[in-house]
Amino acid sequence: MTVKALFFDVFGTLVDWRSGVAREAEAHLAPRGYALDWLAFADAWRAEYEPSMAEVRSGSKPFAKLDILHRRSLDRILPRFGVGEVPEDVLQSLNLAWHRLDVWPDVPEGFDRLARRFLLAPVSNGNISLMVDLARRNRLHYDAILGAEIAGDYKPKPRVYLAAAEAFDLAPGECMMVFAASHYPADGAAGVGMCCGSVARPDEFGPGKAASVPSGPVDVAARDLIELAEKLGA
Amino acid sequence: MTVKALFFDVFGTLVDWRSGVAREAEAHLAPRGYALDWLAFADAWRAEYEPSMAEVRSGSKPFAKLDILHRRSLDRILPRFGVGEVPEDVLQSLNLAWHRLDVWPDVPEGFDRLARRFLLAPVSNGNISLMVDLARRNRLHYDAILGAEIAGDYKPKPRVYLAAAEAFDLAPGECMMVFAASHYPADGAAGVGMCCGSVARPDEFGPGKAASVPSGPVDVAARDLIELAEKLGA
Repeated sequence: MTVKALFFDVFGTLVDWRSGVAREAEAHLAPRGYALDWLAFADAWRAEYEPSMAEVRSGSKPFAKLDILHRRSLDRILPRFGVGEVPEDVLQSLNLAWHRLDVWPDVPEGFDRLARRFLLAPVSNGNISLMVDLARRNRLHYDAILGAEIAGDYKPKPRVYLAAAEAFDLAPGECMMVFAASHYPADGAAGVGMCCGSVARPDEFGPGKAASVPSGPVDVAARDLIELAEKLGA
Repeated sequence: MTVKALFFDVFGTLVDWRSGVAREAEAHLAPRGYALDWLAFADAWRAEYEPSMAEVRSGSKPFAKLDILHRRSLDRILPRFGVGEVPEDVLQSLNLAWHRLDVWPDVPEGFDRLARRFLLAPVSNGNISLMVDLARRNRLHYDAILGAEIAGDYKPKPRVYLAAAEAFDLAPGECMMVFAASHYPADGAAGVGMCCGSVARPDEFGPGKAASVPSGPVDVAARDLIELAEKLGA
């Protein structure tokens, strides 16, 4: 392995979307008198993620950034939770809940170490502004923001991974895609010849609900980003 | 002005391309027995920059990243300087001279201050990997790498500026393009409604050769990035 760049999945791998979205939903809707199961609301919103991207991947809808897909999904789930009559500015702010998520505790130290040895970039389905807001909030320094918006399509379409490697002038085999263990094999990086690294993230879908080890072979499996840095000699 | 993001021209504005390219040309070619006027060589290479992009802007050639245009230009000027018989690997390394340039002395402090208040991104005609290498070399932290490669066209085409604003979910008027004073009015940011800031850079084309103040109105004219930060309250 002569890996020169690490590409990161973000939702679940670097940030805890579930508790963050639940917190933001409560902050926006509780003052309006709603008392939902906020974690169930976060899960429902996330459950619309795959189907919303499938329309783009299939070509039946043109590419739109994830903020727009998130809004379509939000509008779909609100009635299911009995939420109506929310002012548009509140909905717009709630939709940006995904910009206000927190990283898992190991990420800052892991990034500091990994950055010494590798180029770092998110290769997420999240749009550039979303990645920028998460990076600012959590004080992460990327070398560039790559991913779906650069490629004009959504993972796991090969184009998204290949566009990222090309942006860095690297062959796929010189790049490692890092994702939560339970995302294996859904992540498409291996299919284009990228190296793959996994981190455990057992709590992505609720405490201990996700597999901590990938169900098949990856190049490096680590507990968290700090152990990943150790295993990669960074 | 409610500027939220600063977009930077890079060649001449942030980095001293002339002395850097001259140094790299000498480092690559002097060991092979060549004794050129290295600064004249840098000037000649840079003089091919506009015509090489014009073919892309006009649509007569498809978009290719600046590294590729730089190589075409290099192949054009080498015979003019009597340079032949250079191994391909040396030419490839020389072509990356543009990845190994140094920032003007005020840039690191200016960036540190400006980053506290604004999102920062290069909106350069240089490709992503070139921007990444310059940032790493000079320890600059951008929020994202925007510019020509994202837009698939070259400045001053409006699309390049607009794509940058859209990536940050900002209106053009919420963005300020920062460029060397002598680049006014060639820079196209004002034409799409962006705010404009200038820094002096009198030495871009040789000591004292460039105008230190723009030949027309900009929103903020500063001596350097530190004064720009002061004037912007950062």
